[in-house]
Amino acid sequence: MKYLDLFPKTIKQAPAGAESTNHRLLVRGGFIDQLMAGSWTLLPLGYKVVSKIVQIIREEMDATGAQEMLMPLLHPKEVWERSGRWNKTDVKEIMYQFEDIRGREVGLAITHEEIVMDLLGKHVSSYKDLPVKVYHFSTKFRNELRARSGILRGREFMMKDLYSAHVSEEELFKYYEEVKQAYLKIFQRIGLEVRVVEASGGIFTDKYTHEFQALVESGEDIIYYCQSCDFARNKEIFNGKEGDKCPQCRGVIKAANSIEVGNIFPLGTKYSKDMKVFYKDEKGQDKPIWFASYGIGPTRVMGALVEVFHDEKGIIWPESVAPYQVHLVGLDLSETQIRIKAEDIYNRLQTAGVEVLYDDRADVTAGEKFADADLLGVPYRVVVSKKTEDKLEVKKRNRAEVEFLSYDELLGKLKTT
Amino acid sequence: MKYLDLFPKTIKQAPAGAESTNHRLLVRGGFIDQLMAGSWTLLPLGYKVVSKIVQIIREEMDATGAQEMLMPLLHPKEVWERSGRWNKTDVKEIMYQFEDIRGREVGLAITHEEIVMDLLGKHVSSYKDLPVKVYHFSTKFRNELRARSGILRGREFMMKDLYSAHVSEEELFKYYEEVKQAYLKIFQRIGLEVRVVEASGGIFTDKYTHEFQALVESGEDIIYYCQSCDFARNKEIFNGKEGDKCPQCRGVIKAANSIEVGNIFPLGTKYSKDMKVFYKDEKGQDKPIWFASYGIGPTRVMGALVEVFHDEKGIIWPESVAPYQVHLVGLDLSETQIRIKAEDIYNRLQTAGVEVLYDDRADVTAGEKFADADLLGVPYRVVVSKKTEDKLEVKKRNRAEVEFLSYDELLGKLKTT
Repeated sequence: MKYLDLFPKTIKQAPAGAESTNHRLLVRGGFIDQLMAGSWTLLPLGYKVVSKIVQIIREEMDATGAQEMLMPLLHPKEVWERSGRWNKTDVKEIMYQFEDIRGREVGLAITHEEIVMDLLGKHVSSYKDLPVKVYHFSTKFRNELRARSGILRGREFMMKDLYSAHVSEEELFKYYEEVKQAYLKIFQRIGLEVRVVEASGGIFTDKYTHEFQALVESGEDIIYYCQSCDFARNKEIFNGKEGDKCPQCRGVIKAANSIEVGNIFPLGTKYSKDMKVFYKDEKGQDKPIWFASYGIGPTRVMGALVEVFHDEKGIIWPESVAPYQVHLVGLDLSETQIRIKAEDIYNRLQTAGVEVLYDDRADVTAGEKFADADLLGVPYRVVVSKKTEDKLEVKKRNRAEVEFLSYDELLGKLKTT
Repeated sequence: MKYLDLFPKTIKQAPAGAESTNHRLLVRGGFIDQLMAGSWTLLPLGYKVVSKIVQIIREEMDATGAQEMLMPLLHPKEVWERSGRWNKTDVKEIMYQFEDIRGREVGLAITHEEIVMDLLGKHVSSYKDLPVKVYHFSTKFRNELRARSGILRGREFMMKDLYSAHVSEEELFKYYEEVKQAYLKIFQRIGLEVRVVEASGGIFTDKYTHEFQALVESGEDIIYYCQSCDFARNKEIFNGKEGDKCPQCRGVIKAANSIEVGNIFPLGTKYSKDMKVFYKDEKGQDKPIWFASYGIGPTRVMGALVEVFHDEKGIIWPESVAPYQVHLVGLDLSETQIRIKAEDIYNRLQTAGVEVLYDDRADVTAGEKFADADLLGVPYRVVVSKKTEDKLEVKKRNRAEVEFLSYDELLGKLKTT
């Protein structure tokens, strides 16, 4: 992609009222644009990052044997009444519910347990039809009282939600554990360090659930975790304070701010019983379906990454989700020789399968170009200029040193990372 | 994918009230599931087909230099008031408009011209920032009075919409023509024969626009076209009848039923002027932006394909969008030797990169398996049974003949198609 073709360009001024780092940097970099409070367009650069996060999640979901599909966003009241959630106060507070012109009451998707259960009711009759593991990437709407923290807490956002249905508690927890490991692998591939934290089930279940929390100083959540073992609890269910002894291993409890980037809910048989969706066992008897749901918000993950990986100059994307691998900066482009060389490097890198953003502006200073490269946070900055002669000036975004490499040396470096 | 793992299984009975072929066959095959009138879940098989359609569209959009992004679905009233469309009767009839709990009026996306214009207003200042070509795949909501024709006319459906912004009418029509050609290439790759038809602009523009119409007997639209040249008009703007002389070449006009699978709108400067979004030209003067939009509904395309490609037994998918390339049918699977051979063929095909659906059911008759294969419409049916010995029985879905091939012969056949 040539910078002159990229829509939109970077913005020098931070947006008014941007309190959080992800809001400030993602807007300035042209990754996202605010339509209204809590509602964002993923601009081409932001869409690229989110697509890479989505693809990593997809691969790990498929590896668990889950199947991708796509469910509707407008939900009929009747389906939500079957679970008893339509009229729950804490659901009504966040679900957009309204009448269509024919007087039919509908709600916008806050989550999809009811819709999956409805599907299971239509398509599962016997134990032979289980397990079912289905997921989708789609929009969720939540009428948050105060949308804030940039793209971290929106009224409309992208979610991957997986649902699994099983014949028994044992089968459910076997798969639940498999998904927990898949989630850890996802966050490892994305480059985000997380803790698995026990939490309350909120509007989903009375049981404890698990959150995946990224430790970030700017995070709105508070978790208590043990420094010696895997004990970790969300503030809401931890009765204690920093410095207490770990109830599991007697180690020392620490408190930390964090951002929730995923959650998994072992919902048990509640939805099956409430919605009267059963399967027939080997003896032909009706049995409740064991059910669980598992969420990750790709747009929220992008925001969390920026909160973790940035410096005063801009974003520092992990390589696995960076919008481009190389930010090629052409300097002295008014000189034909240099321009030809820069274009040549651009074309050769692209042909080699490297994703390149090429700053082809001729009327901008080196300082401005470097500032934009730092803001956008692409892992490798490669400069072609009079000074670089037959070499390329290569700098990693997260390092201070500059190296002078030949094209082949650069390519070798890129291929091994 | 093993059939025993696939969610859901095929259904023997056509759904009640299914008037159209796509409704009947897609539901019976487990491609889609109806949540409410006009609202469908794309089940794993249906999602696979739509994903392939999406990928073809994406490649051809990218080839025109367009950039993918993702815009929100909840739109603030204020942005739609700027174009004057919020209160238009024909918009109000199909747009879900409601108040959120804070009394803010919002509407669900019926299209995105206003949102793109709002983006251009924020990010385009000079002629140097143009052209802009951006698109997304996302959900559209239309409160159709009568949702019908299966997945062809939904209240919620997937749409690819591209928007382009230019400095002049000339530039706009140059790109408009490029997109028209890209659309023709898309439908050619998908395997759908279309006519480019002049039509009225509806709620979009007062000017004529172009529809891409697939000629199908079951189609709800009627078009008049010339058998000797490219003249073609939608019923609404054609003042004539079948048998008339073509106003362009004096050939004979024919009438035909059709399904609209795409449309392109040269919107001109209307939105720019109405919403007061201008660019500065070389002299620093404000000029209106030339604007166009271009839509294809991937879910509707899937429905249209079924209307065109089916027989009394089921669907006949074009190879480019089929959910799998091979439907491997194992017969006599109670015999260990045969089961081992079938599994081996399944694994080898998958390793070779062939997408295979393997019917691994042991308790089902050959007749039932063949009926399901015909219903699902995968291009190649490959049978492993006692009878096939060291060969494979290969039949194309759209042919009657059966061939006996070795594994290598089959693979060669698949790779060349």
